[in-house]
Amino acid sequence: MDRRKFFKTAGASTLLAGASVVAPAVHAKKTINWKMVTAWPKNFPGLGTGAENLAKLIEEMSGGRIKVKVYSAGELVPPFEVFDAVSSGTAQMGHAASLYWKGKNEATQFFTGVPFGFTGQEMMSWLQYGGGMELWQELYAPFNLVPAAAGNSGVQMAGWFNREINSLADLKGLKMRIPGIGGEVIKRAGGTPVNIPGGEIFSALKSGTIDATEFIGPYNDLAFGFHKAAKYYYYPGWQEPGSCLEIIINKTVLDSLPKDLHSIVLQACRISGNALTAEYTARNASALETLKVKHNVQVKRLPDEVLKKLHQISNEVVAEMAAKNASVKKVYDSVQAFQQQAIEWHNISERAYLNARGMV
Amino acid sequence: MDRRKFFKTAGASTLLAGASVVAPAVHAKKTINWKMVTAWPKNFPGLGTGAENLAKLIEEMSGGRIKVKVYSAGELVPPFEVFDAVSSGTAQMGHAASLYWKGKNEATQFFTGVPFGFTGQEMMSWLQYGGGMELWQELYAPFNLVPAAAGNSGVQMAGWFNREINSLADLKGLKMRIPGIGGEVIKRAGGTPVNIPGGEIFSALKSGTIDATEFIGPYNDLAFGFHKAAKYYYYPGWQEPGSCLEIIINKTVLDSLPKDLHSIVLQACRISGNALTAEYTARNASALETLKVKHNVQVKRLPDEVLKKLHQISNEVVAEMAAKNASVKKVYDSVQAFQQQAIEWHNISERAYLNARGMV
Repeated sequence: MDRRKFFKTAGASTLLAGASVVAPAVHAKKTINWKMVTAWPKNFPGLGTGAENLAKLIEEMSGGRIKVKVYSAGELVPPFEVFDAVSSGTAQMGHAASLYWKGKNEATQFFTGVPFGFTGQEMMSWLQYGGGMELWQELYAPFNLVPAAAGNSGVQMAGWFNREINSLADLKGLKMRIPGIGGEVIKRAGGTPVNIPGGEIFSALKSGTIDATEFIGPYNDLAFGFHKAAKYYYYPGWQEPGSCLEIIINKTVLDSLPKDLHSIVLQACRISGNALTAEYTARNASALETLKVKHNVQVKRLPDEVLKKLHQISNEVVAEMAAKNASVKKVYDSVQAFQQQAIEWHNISERAYLNARGMV
Repeated sequence: MDRRKFFKTAGASTLLAGASVVAPAVHAKKTINWKMVTAWPKNFPGLGTGAENLAKLIEEMSGGRIKVKVYSAGELVPPFEVFDAVSSGTAQMGHAASLYWKGKNEATQFFTGVPFGFTGQEMMSWLQYGGGMELWQELYAPFNLVPAAAGNSGVQMAGWFNREINSLADLKGLKMRIPGIGGEVIKRAGGTPVNIPGGEIFSALKSGTIDATEFIGPYNDLAFGFHKAAKYYYYPGWQEPGSCLEIIINKTVLDSLPKDLHSIVLQACRISGNALTAEYTARNASALETLKVKHNVQVKRLPDEVLKKLHQISNEVVAEMAAKNASVKKVYDSVQAFQQQAIEWHNISERAYLNARGMV
């Protein structure tokens, strides 16, 4: 899903916004109070709860020396002002997704992921052992922000459809709610991408205003009840194969911490990120069973010719982005080099194993 | 690989063994000095370095309040006495693999993984969100030990072969170094599993004493030079699809820590575990390229009929283990229930995506 459009209204509660926060280093022995602004509705499964868990973890590991108060979307600042709020010091931390900041630099999208790009495992490996994190830090440094990976949703579904997709021809004129790079790909394949806020997708799908929508995966989709509005649930997802969420921290504030707290904050981000990935794996698996067994959802596969075409167009779109923007090119070159090796390896390991296990 | 047999000699340096360690809670404000005994040779890539990184992380996050000295295999206790050493308090922590302790209880093997079982991602999800960790804790509680996952090697390779495997008939009489449950499977498939210490595998393979060996994956295998001793490198691995390493902590010692340090130690384990998985993904990918491009290694695929048969036998072997032992049954039931859902989900997500991406 594009969380940019998830929110119907941006929220008006900006009462506290603009009240600048003094870096708490000078009070190192007192409790350090932080604000974490998020782009998620309160307790949104996975994303919202991930932010809550992170706050608890920082407090626990710091022995209460840091307390983090979590603000849901719009509570302190609107969801798409999270970046600026943390950059300016209005809040010390943020929990969102890097693709939201493509207005700052198109390259930010690569740290969430691009169509036919990294799986979750590959993304985490590229960030930690493939130079990805250094590129992300470099990209955010001018904004006085330190980024961290906040976990991975796993392979997202191709989405919910009221029309059968048996060939490329079936994409012609398809009105699909699909934002971002995926939307551009659908457009070039002959469809009509539309952007609809999360809260309006259900009725648009039910009424026929749109023919299809992508969102996340069984865990979140079940909660939204899309199975009551669409005939088919399609796979595999191609547009967001391992979307990575992000945590951002104000660099001045982070650097003012004593060394142990500095480490605790950054490491807590890593823990909460990895926990989120584990959570999505378990919850998607059980929600899929519910969708199939309880709600008789028809799970369908996109035809090979469709997947190949979408892949080819995706590569073109991303290459065009790289040709236009030096930052994108730098990140894209790193992603490509890493992905080439990772694909060769995963072809004979993860992919080959999953296929072998599936034969019996 | 079976790390049990990795070590040619168990190491004789037990000078300090038996010197019991006073739980350091009473000195909470002084530096707490811990010993971490491991089952790995010093700086063994991935496994040994993972233990070193964990020690550094605990020291860093605790602001130096805990210092952990890492002992390689045999330095303080022999590798296969790690469990007892931490259980008795000779050392406060250990870094090994749970399958080594099958002599204590056969069920321990499930926390490393079984043939045709969990991928690394599924294992981490089962432990955190599928009840796996509670079962592991329950199993280790009588030994006064708290377990933690120390990371995942990813799908291991089927191994190095000097004989082509084109059918089930080619397994007949195959002398293969393959320990544990995998060895039992090969035996029932007509082969002859042999156990050879890690240091002797190369010459046994080169001289023809054995026809084949499994070990880990490109990252470690390249370092061991197996490509100089065998004709073919086979995939997919089936015997260790996502082997999980373990950290064990003496429960009395852990519980004596102040709350923040207690949390820091357990969370540091999780971080180092996830970092190891990311490391293996990146290093296996680059080592595979080196093996193929620089050393012209012939990468071959096991035939479907062979994989199906090995899968069927593996299921039989594991089911027999469960029928004989109540602890195994309890863990096996949990694994099976989780895996059934996870397979359905990964069939339409990870697996379907990897196949789709591979079409272009």
